[in-house]
Amino acid sequence: MNSAKKVVTFGELMLRLAAPGTERLLQTPRLVATFGGSEANVAIGLSFLGVSASHVTVLPDQNPLSDMCIGELRHHGVGTSDIVRSSGRFGLYYLESGANQRPPRILYDREGSAMALAKPGDVHWEPIFQDAGWFHVSEITPAISASAADLTLDGMRRAKKSGLMVSCDLNHRKNLWKWGSDARDVMPVLMKYTDIVVGNRETMDVVLGVAANGDFKALTRKSLKTYPNLKTVVLTRRESRSASHNGWSACLDDGKKFLESRHYEITHIVERVGGGDAFDAGLIYGLMKLPTLQEALEFASAIAVLKHSIPGDFSRSTLEEVHSLLKDGGTGKVQR
Amino acid sequence: MNSAKKVVTFGELMLRLAAPGTERLLQTPRLVATFGGSEANVAIGLSFLGVSASHVTVLPDQNPLSDMCIGELRHHGVGTSDIVRSSGRFGLYYLESGANQRPPRILYDREGSAMALAKPGDVHWEPIFQDAGWFHVSEITPAISASAADLTLDGMRRAKKSGLMVSCDLNHRKNLWKWGSDARDVMPVLMKYTDIVVGNRETMDVVLGVAANGDFKALTRKSLKTYPNLKTVVLTRRESRSASHNGWSACLDDGKKFLESRHYEITHIVERVGGGDAFDAGLIYGLMKLPTLQEALEFASAIAVLKHSIPGDFSRSTLEEVHSLLKDGGTGKVQR
Amino acid sequence: MNSAKKVVTFGELMLRLAAPGTERLLQTPRLVATFGGSEANVAIGLSFLGVSASHVTVLPDQNPLSDMCIGELRHHGVGTSDIVRSSGRFGLYYLESGANQRPPRILYDREGSAMALAKPGDVHWEPIFQDAGWFHVSEITPAISASAADLTLDGMRRAKKSGLMVSCDLNHRKNLWKWGSDARDVMPVLMKYTDIVVGNRETMDVVLGVAANGDFKALTRKSLKTYPNLKTVVLTRRESRSASHNGWSACLDDGKKFLESRHYEITHIVERVGGGDAFDAGLIYGLMKLPTLQEALEFASAIAVLKHSIPGDFSRSTLEEVHSLLKDGGTGKVQR
Amino acid sequence: MNSAKKVVTFGELMLRLAAPGTERLLQTPRLVATFGGSEANVAIGLSFLGVSASHVTVLPDQNPLSDMCIGELRHHGVGTSDIVRSSGRFGLYYLESGANQRPPRILYDREGSAMALAKPGDVHWEPIFQDAGWFHVSEITPAISASAADLTLDGMRRAKKSGLMVSCDLNHRKNLWKWGSDARDVMPVLMKYTDIVVGNRETMDVVLGVAANGDFKALTRKSLKTYPNLKTVVLTRRESRSASHNGWSACLDDGKKFLESRHYEITHIVERVGGGDAFDAGLIYGLMKLPTLQEALEFASAIAVLKHSIPGDFSRSTLEEVHSLLKDGGTGKVQR
Amino acid sequence: MNSAKKVVTFGELMLRLAAPGTERLLQTPRLVATFGGSEANVAIGLSFLGVSASHVTVLPDQNPLSDMCIGELRHHGVGTSDIVRSSGRFGLYYLESGANQRPPRILYDREGSAMALAKPGDVHWEPIFQDAGWFHVSEITPAISASAADLTLDGMRRAKKSGLMVSCDLNHRKNLWKWGSDARDVMPVLMKYTDIVVGNRETMDVVLGVAANGDFKALTRKSLKTYPNLKTVVLTRRESRSASHNGWSACLDDGKKFLESRHYEITHIVERVGGGDAFDAGLIYGLMKLPTLQEALEFASAIAVLKHSIPGDFSRSTLEEVHSLLKDGGTGKVQR
Amino acid sequence: MNSAKKVVTFGELMLRLAAPGTERLLQTPRLVATFGGSEANVAIGLSFLGVSASHVTVLPDQNPLSDMCIGELRHHGVGTSDIVRSSGRFGLYYLESGANQRPPRILYDREGSAMALAKPGDVHWEPIFQDAGWFHVSEITPAISASAADLTLDGMRRAKKSGLMVSCDLNHRKNLWKWGSDARDVMPVLMKYTDIVVGNRETMDVVLGVAANGDFKALTRKSLKTYPNLKTVVLTRRESRSASHNGWSACLDDGKKFLESRHYEITHIVERVGGGDAFDAGLIYGLMKLPTLQEALEFASAIAVLKHSIPGDFSRSTLEEVHSLLKDGGTGKVQR
Repeated sequence: MNSAKKVVTFGELMLRLAAPGTERLLQTPRLVATFGGSEANVAIGLSFLGVSASHVTVLPDQNPLSDMCIGELRHHGVGTSDIVRSSGRFGLYYLESGANQRPPRILYDREGSAMALAKPGDVHWEPIFQDAGWFHVSEITPAISASAADLTLDGMRRAKKSGLMVSCDLNHRKNLWKWGSDARDVMPVLMKYTDIVVGNRETMDVVLGVAANGDFKALTRKSLKTYPNLKTVVLTRRESRSASHNGWSACLDDGKKFLESRHYEITHIVERVGGGDAFDAGLIYGLMKLPTLQEALEFASAIAVLKHSIPGDFSRSTLEEVHSLLKDGGTGKVQR
Repeated sequence: MNSAKKVVTFGELMLRLAAPGTERLLQTPRLVATFGGSEANVAIGLSFLGVSASHVTVLPDQNPLSDMCIGELRHHGVGTSDIVRSSGRFGLYYLESGANQRPPRILYDREGSAMALAKPGDVHWEPIFQDAGWFHVSEITPAISASAADLTLDGMRRAKKSGLMVSCDLNHRKNLWKWGSDARDVMPVLMKYTDIVVGNRETMDVVLGVAANGDFKALTRKSLKTYPNLKTVVLTRRESRSASHNGWSACLDDGKKFLESRHYEITHIVERVGGGDAFDAGLIYGLMKLPTLQEALEFASAIAVLKHSIPGDFSRSTLEEVHSLLKDGGTGKVQR
Repeated sequence: MNSAKKVVTFGELMLRLAAPGTERLLQTPRLVATFGGSEANVAIGLSFLGVSASHVTVLPDQNPLSDMCIGELRHHGVGTSDIVRSSGRFGLYYLESGANQRPPRILYDREGSAMALAKPGDVHWEPIFQDAGWFHVSEITPAISASAADLTLDGMRRAKKSGLMVSCDLNHRKNLWKWGSDARDVMPVLMKYTDIVVGNRETMDVVLGVAANGDFKALTRKSLKTYPNLKTVVLTRRESRSASHNGWSACLDDGKKFLESRHYEITHIVERVGGGDAFDAGLIYGLMKLPTLQEALEFASAIAVLKHSIPGDFSRSTLEEVHSLLKDGGTGKVQR
Repeated sequence: MNSAKKVVTFGELMLRLAAPGTERLLQTPRLVATFGGSEANVAIGLSFLGVSASHVTVLPDQNPLSDMCIGELRHHGVGTSDIVRSSGRFGLYYLESGANQRPPRILYDREGSAMALAKPGDVHWEPIFQDAGWFHVSEITPAISASAADLTLDGMRRAKKSGLMVSCDLNHRKNLWKWGSDARDVMPVLMKYTDIVVGNRETMDVVLGVAANGDFKALTRKSLKTYPNLKTVVLTRRESRSASHNGWSACLDDGKKFLESRHYEITHIVERVGGGDAFDAGLIYGLMKLPTLQEALEFASAIAVLKHSIPGDFSRSTLEEVHSLLKDGGTGKVQR
Repeated sequence: MNSAKKVVTFGELMLRLAAPGTERLLQTPRLVATFGGSEANVAIGLSFLGVSASHVTVLPDQNPLSDMCIGELRHHGVGTSDIVRSSGRFGLYYLESGANQRPPRILYDREGSAMALAKPGDVHWEPIFQDAGWFHVSEITPAISASAADLTLDGMRRAKKSGLMVSCDLNHRKNLWKWGSDARDVMPVLMKYTDIVVGNRETMDVVLGVAANGDFKALTRKSLKTYPNLKTVVLTRRESRSASHNGWSACLDDGKKFLESRHYEITHIVERVGGGDAFDAGLIYGLMKLPTLQEALEFASAIAVLKHSIPGDFSRSTLEEVHSLLKDGGTGKVQR
Repeated sequence: MNSAKKVVTFGELMLRLAAPGTERLLQTPRLVATFGGSEANVAIGLSFLGVSASHVTVLPDQNPLSDMCIGELRHHGVGTSDIVRSSGRFGLYYLESGANQRPPRILYDREGSAMALAKPGDVHWEPIFQDAGWFHVSEITPAISASAADLTLDGMRRAKKSGLMVSCDLNHRKNLWKWGSDARDVMPVLMKYTDIVVGNRETMDVVLGVAANGDFKALTRKSLKTYPNLKTVVLTRRESRSASHNGWSACLDDGKKFLESRHYEITHIVERVGGGDAFDAGLIYGLMKLPTLQEALEFASAIAVLKHSIPGDFSRSTLEEVHSLLKDGGTGKVQR
């Protein structure tokens, strides 16, 4: 693809209400209130890397939160001109970050949101895709409502038709699928319009029905066979040792080569929410801008690892910072 | 009534998300997160005065916010054993406090809340009213949904049948009436089961259709005639000079006497939300415990005035503090 | 025992003034002000697990801190109706949390507290024990004054007489014993009325005079022989690698079986204060509700480990959360 | 002018380091860190009103503060594509807000800033002015260095040549004029390229050498005569009763009519910094969009008054909010 | 006196635990923790004015709070070399600041403090007074214990003997007098060694038994007659309109002239605690350094007024700031 | 040397503006504002250990930050009477603390600071050195300007002449050397007046041109030969595993013995800034007060390790705390 073209991401943006530090929710009467949403996080991550990105979402009309949310995207350089304003609530989620043996906890409150009410026709894809080269979605949007699933499919179809690269992250949220279908019913259909899928061992099984007993190469190969429209399968491997300590690596298979990234131990996790989104941003960046698939994969893992040191949903790492980690392996020496 | 019997209040409790200090909403990424709701505020205000109070509401099942909210009521000594847990969201509201010429701003997000979904039958009133002497509701609950309006009416009817005193605050929120009827359709019906109504010049007109051209005594007299089941009409008079400075007084008419409270200037408002609820608590306390109507009215106005100095939804004034204001008129001398 | 009966805990509650985060005391002019006290922490921990618990303490009369403190217990569902109000100060402690090689530091300021002034007769135990099945005390109360030691003994004697299970935690604070006797003089007497003692290798030696050279089974056996009234001896093993990283496990001996819990590494300690109290809550829960001693011991260790991830004195873990840790071993995966 | 054309503002942006609340500087070790600068404040104020605005400034290269500052402008919808990155420091100012008889205090630290080092040629004005209709500057930029004064003059000259309306605010900072000339030397020259000047009684005298003994109409008339290129003179009248309470009004003279705005008492000032900038934004809006000069003047005064209720440098008032104040006079009633 | 000689102040220093902003005590789990104490506040106020001051107090040994407290005095330039370390607690007080009709509330917790336990002989006055010209005490120290009263008297006697000017502030705290005597028993004795007394209409009556029906001149004259050792009587007149708004003025009588200061309205009180201490500091400064009594009195009133704008116990006003208020009357114009 | 004599340190003090917690700079609009500077940190560290220390620096005149900064030094007992007030800015630095693989980041803004403008003659060394036994400098001061380098050399020369021990820390900041020379040009000259140099493997090479292929003993020996005026070479070994986890040890060579300290793993770094300065303070303390070089070296490493647990620039460890770590090795057990 033409790497000068912009990346379009599509998905819900929520108000994120996090308990401060390691507190339990409302242990004290304060919440850290920012915005977040998997696909928008990807757009922001890309923008920090200097890639032109535009986010498409549906936000409630006449709600000051919508204006603040759009402002936040603009702050980080993400295009917001294709955002649709409509009826419905402003979705939100509550977050407790966990520590040690206590897992992070997320409580969604997105029923009746503007995005959940959106349907095909609400977004006019053609003009959006005109100067775009890439379209990125995730499993979350189809999960929230039947109409949102239809709208996602609509977007993917038109993106393919417009010649865009289409990537889909299977970041599975099983509690969201309440509208009648489940992930296994819907997501395989979306794979027909997907070039690059990002998943992990568990989601490949649960969402796409592909399993391979822990052999990652067998899993990617099998996926490529089962879903012949896929060009590339990327798997992340998060080894959850505790809420504070994870291992991280990733692998990629384009049908020709099976590549593996360096392995990282992230020993003092600041925030793991958004780690996979940072990976997606790094992967898209790498595939667009870096000379080899191996470099793209390493770049994606490195930026995902850095995300675990940054509070909030967003990757805020610059190109220099990612390359610096790739170079020195993360010794954490003071930069003066 | 038997003043040893408890007061039962009924209405929605919400998460209250307030911008810190005088900031605009999300001007900084922090929110002060407490709980509030007009009728529960009354129960808490009463509990601080040593009156036994129990709050009835419907909260979402399997939601940690519900547990925290119940804990908050318990903290302040309010009975929670009759709270119903059910499906639906946990309603919330956003608050900007304003200053000077900039008004406070409230943004409700309570559609689809557990209380909005509640309907007659969800609350079993008889056991609740067994050791109760007073039932307090407000215009807010009927406003949020048809079924909630029905449930309110159901409660009031049974309260009257059980011999309770019934009070209703007409704290009109015109933006909440979205379910088909409006206040003027519904509230007059509720007046049949109401002993004491608390309103102001504007709500008497808009909600109950009674107006008297600024003559407060004419207004209360006319109200008592129009709604013959009413025993007492109480009007508060908030003179909004700015978001930071209000005048406050109240009047009461029991058909025999028309009484007026002292007038206060509240020159440095800390928070005006909950002022009317504090008044209701003070009024119920006064009517239950104080020897004369005039004393009850003065007590109610004094506690309402004190509420304007306390952040959050709740009155936190003790008997001693209210009596101290009644005695010295609010000179603000240090208590050591 | 009848597991429907409530648990009664007895001990001082203090205002806890903690330096924020990892700051040294008053490094900045802010303190995090909550309440805490070993035995009340046990009651709150039990209440989070759904066990009915009531805390007995002596708090200063006419002190708004007492009201706030009682409110905090009520918030968490702990019974407060047997709390005695009396003369004396409201005790407090200052806390610095430490990190790495720097240990946490606690500075007590509890001289002259209402609890230190309390004496036999101030608490009327019989009505308190009427619907109770368990009485829990710790070595802290006897440490603070001769009269508090007498009152503790009085409570234990009457609890035994009323047929309650009596547990005692030897959480030794050597700096508190300033009133003339030391732990070794007093605590052995209390063991006559104790069914279950919780200690560790060091406190068994210092407080009860039982040592066994690091052989835990020998130590529990020897303890049971030395103190024949004891039915069960429980030892926790905290391996303090640093202020930020501890190992944790526990063992239990009922004279028949010597059982050991799973071992945990707690690598990113948020707060270790209250870890032992959470263990006690888990142990009491387990012994009351779980089918086997081994399950009770595992439950107690798991909830103690989780406490290390939660700021403040209190365990805030629910049954589901403890069981989830017992099941997955603490991988810290996001709960959505 | 064509009201669809954008407004271009020009001036330094600084990091603003404010003591929290009413604290003295560094009384506690915290600072509220935002961005601000008189002319950028005007652009942001305009953007909140829906007017297309673009800010021109010079920011240090390779400095993360520059990126954050640009992000902040983008957040609020201000165009940043013409910002120049160059060498030099990132200027800053410290702020103590004052209260009652204690005045606010500002401490500038902008020597050697990128803007102070900027000179004619660093900004390419022609493309910037292509789709612009208005150019706004203030007395601050000429004050900081000789080269910045030259660059300002250069911009104004070219703006006039390109047919833009040029406005200049005489917000005099006498302590900034350290480079050899003083305001009276420089500003009269700039008046040759100014259509609309905003000043007050004191600055007209000190900066432009026009005085009229307190007669505002005489003052505006005299100014128009002395500086014949001026089309309109606008004077604000801040009556400083204390740091917490100011009176506010304004007058305008276009040579034909002398108009006066309503007078306001701002009794509980949250922040007075940025009040004049909000006025400028309101004035530009009004002159571009409102049918009469009187309405423009009233709009400007109203938004200036509202600014005093908002913390930070920026006006954050929307059109609706300003019109609502114009309509109800600022009663501060809750907006729900 | 020789104005180069230092001022010695004597009294207890406490940890001051204040609820943030206008919150009620422990409404949220945070306290602002600073130090304060009437007489030390005077020393700090003097040090900000460039006067050499040394504070004498008794602080607990082996308590990190003592070190921090001494550090705080040193920070502000107050001499600490004569502070005695001894046994006893570190006294503290809780503060709620109030607003409008709600008064500030102070809760002392200073029983058993090191100062309360101090007795004559614990402080060696002679070396302390060697290079001193002024000794300042207040009614608070005699109030806390019999031995502290004796130690105060001891200090005053020796100060007189050493030729120092002795001033005493009658800042009456009636709740502190719990040790058997009351103010009226003790303070008249201290007046024998007092040159300058600072009181108000109420304390002159309650503490010294002098009343004059609201005629301030009569009151000062009568006081000078009743207590012939007094050289000067100074009265402050705080008109408490509310917790947020006070009037302030003062008068002084040296037996020859009766002088009155300008009257101030303090309309937006930030903190009134420490206002009287600031006055004392200003008065001592004025009497030492200014040419006339009238100027001294005006200076004292001005610095007291400024203190109401500053959070915390301490006056932090500089000479320039006080003179600036004396000059412009407190218009609150921004100082840039 | 006479260990009763004071230690004099010399270097710039800056305002330190740190992003809170693990946030990126200005991710939220708050900064933690304290003071810091390598050499002043050494003085404060010494003062906490009970060693008399005085800091010499040049601060801007008529700047309230200078007063606050001096107050901070005084707070910690450091002598400030030799601080020079002059023209120039108050230098500052921005700090992001990093975590895991993300390194801490420091951004200096010290150009044009009062210290950078200082030159020989501005500090009168003789009276300063009169009762001093030790003079400590670092490579930072020579780095900031030619005149500051000259002033440093001037001080060292006179210190040697006055018989003081002179130590120099090579804490190399390569980005500061912008004035024409680089470290290798300047620092070797300073070594002629240095008794004890503290460096590490990298700075010995870059700054002094001595390398030894990772053999630390060879490196110290070679350094002593290359710079024959040096009496002792001390090297710290920080093993940067990540921003959160470092190894730490040190070695010392006095030409006779090559000594190595214990090795520490610092697994949960709170703040690494100031670690080397704490080491210097510990080393100076040890060399002045402890009987053997080995004990001095161990003391220095222990206090450096403890510094990593304390937020801010300053070591705040007491003698007891360092000795406690030396004794128990850092188990982190609660100190009650």
